[in-house]
Amino acid sequence: MPVDVETPEPANSTEKLAQEWLANATFEELLATDSSHKSIFLLLTHQNGEKGILLANKSPFPENETAITNILNNAKLKEISKNDIFGSYEIEIPSDLNLLKCQLIYPATDRLISKYRQEEKYIIHETPENYQKITKAYIEKYQLNLNWVYNCLEKKSEVDKIIYEDDDKTNGFILLQDIKWDGKTIENLYVLAICHQHGLKSVRDLTADHLPLLENIRDKSLEAIENKYGLRKDQIKCYFHYQPTFYHLHVHFINLKYDAPASTTMSAILLDDVINNLKICPQFYELATLTFTRRHSDQLMTMYREAGAAEKA
Amino acid sequence: MPVDVETPEPANSTEKLAQEWLANATFEELLATDSSHKSIFLLLTHQNGEKGILLANKSPFPENETAITNILNNAKLKEISKNDIFGSYEIEIPSDLNLLKCQLIYPATDRLISKYRQEEKYIIHETPENYQKITKAYIEKYQLNLNWVYNCLEKKSEVDKIIYEDDDKTNGFILLQDIKWDGKTIENLYVLAICHQHGLKSVRDLTADHLPLLENIRDKSLEAIENKYGLRKDQIKCYFHYQPTFYHLHVHFINLKYDAPASTTMSAILLDDVINNLKICPQFYELATLTFTRRHSDQLMTMYREAGAAEKA
Repeated sequence: MPVDVETPEPANSTEKLAQEWLANATFEELLATDSSHKSIFLLLTHQNGEKGILLANKSPFPENETAITNILNNAKLKEISKNDIFGSYEIEIPSDLNLLKCQLIYPATDRLISKYRQEEKYIIHETPENYQKITKAYIEKYQLNLNWVYNCLEKKSEVDKIIYEDDDKTNGFILLQDIKWDGKTIENLYVLAICHQHGLKSVRDLTADHLPLLENIRDKSLEAIENKYGLRKDQIKCYFHYQPTFYHLHVHFINLKYDAPASTTMSAILLDDVINNLKICPQFYELATLTFTRRHSDQLMTMYREAGAAEKA
Repeated sequence: MPVDVETPEPANSTEKLAQEWLANATFEELLATDSSHKSIFLLLTHQNGEKGILLANKSPFPENETAITNILNNAKLKEISKNDIFGSYEIEIPSDLNLLKCQLIYPATDRLISKYRQEEKYIIHETPENYQKITKAYIEKYQLNLNWVYNCLEKKSEVDKIIYEDDDKTNGFILLQDIKWDGKTIENLYVLAICHQHGLKSVRDLTADHLPLLENIRDKSLEAIENKYGLRKDQIKCYFHYQPTFYHLHVHFINLKYDAPASTTMSAILLDDVINNLKICPQFYELATLTFTRRHSDQLMTMYREAGAAEKA
């Protein structure tokens, strides 16, 4: 993404207010930090007692020749070390070529502050017994209302997002653009397949009987994505979340290049692995211990701790 | 990591040479870019015909109060959008608070240039037949010499890196700091368990007979890491690489927080999943189709294409 370098416009009123708010606020707490993605979340306190949250991100480098040349022409090197042909440097470039992408939220409620405060994550081993005893109770207690899913399936909403449909009651599904995707940037392609069949909560409910459903979703979705977006089938990653956010079976399809949230081990299970596992053992997901992570204050984590199935804090 | 803000020192001679080299070089090619980690790799050409590679990274934000306050006090906001309490801004901060961390390599050989040039990755489905026919031939042809592994196991090298040893010939292993880890920063903890037994190339060679070995490695390594580094067992991620870099069975242990290279789906298989799979089916890894990715020009990828087991480019 190129950094926009525009002539500053006259400050509009909300911009001026935000600048003033920030000038009269002080740092209170480091809510979260991510040194690999170069972002930081700060809690600020204003003189008047209001709280604010600043979400700050370093910007990606521009990718066009003009902007890159501009950076190179203005780079000031400071050597850190040098060994043969390899040198390490800190490079200073003009501030307008190196903007931060930020959100400032003020006044911020306690609920928002909690949301952005980084929490430790822990690993949970969900044995079949833990699933029956703890996870199922969690799903019954906290499961989100699935009406929005049924509305999608019945085309009462998000109709413009639909890419493909197989309307078979047993093995059919709709394929639609994920809400997080702009529908254009292929690098971040994010598409969701939602099965028409009701009652399959997650991979836990799958047996070899569902292989036709799973293979149908995989084959037709990959085909539809390749046809519509020109992305090769061997450059599309398809997976389930475990635990999923909502308990109606669905599959995520993303560009292999895209480092999507929760697309990694302990959050994602590849569709190909699920198909493979069910072919090797038809009852695989009734017998398996599934490993995933949860944040400390998460409700499922709390239930695991209370049941003695996770370490105490 | 705090960004060092130091008084500029008088330029030393190699620093001056590098600055001059850069001043007389122009942009030739965007070798690679990573917008989520905010890095870019550039190929440059000097007037004298030499090539150079600039690896540029945005720096992580500082985490200490003084440096954060310094940024806040010098932040110049430009509003992008504002909706209720939520505002989006581009923020300009002084250039010396926002340095780039770079490496400049010059003169750069073609081999180095290839190494840093981003290549498309593709998904490979390794059926048991593909493994026997293609992957095994690849291992025989290209496998790295394992002497360095045997030297570790026999304590002829890297002795100071060893954290723990179980010297049992069948189920024993050594646990040592990975070469990429500084041995101190717990956030990036990276430890390797290498089994004493020779001849196990990868997870493909594992059957239920190896469960005592795998459980021994898991239990004793987690215990040793917790004792030595104070990291809880449920905050340590343990996994195999598939394909591994070297074909002598070993397990990676990292801090759950650490986004280590190749610790994600299609590169990593959790040790707990391997144990689970072998308990469900003793011959799981003889029967499984394993899914992983390779770069376009990779030797294994080339062999898969030549065998008609991967799509042509």
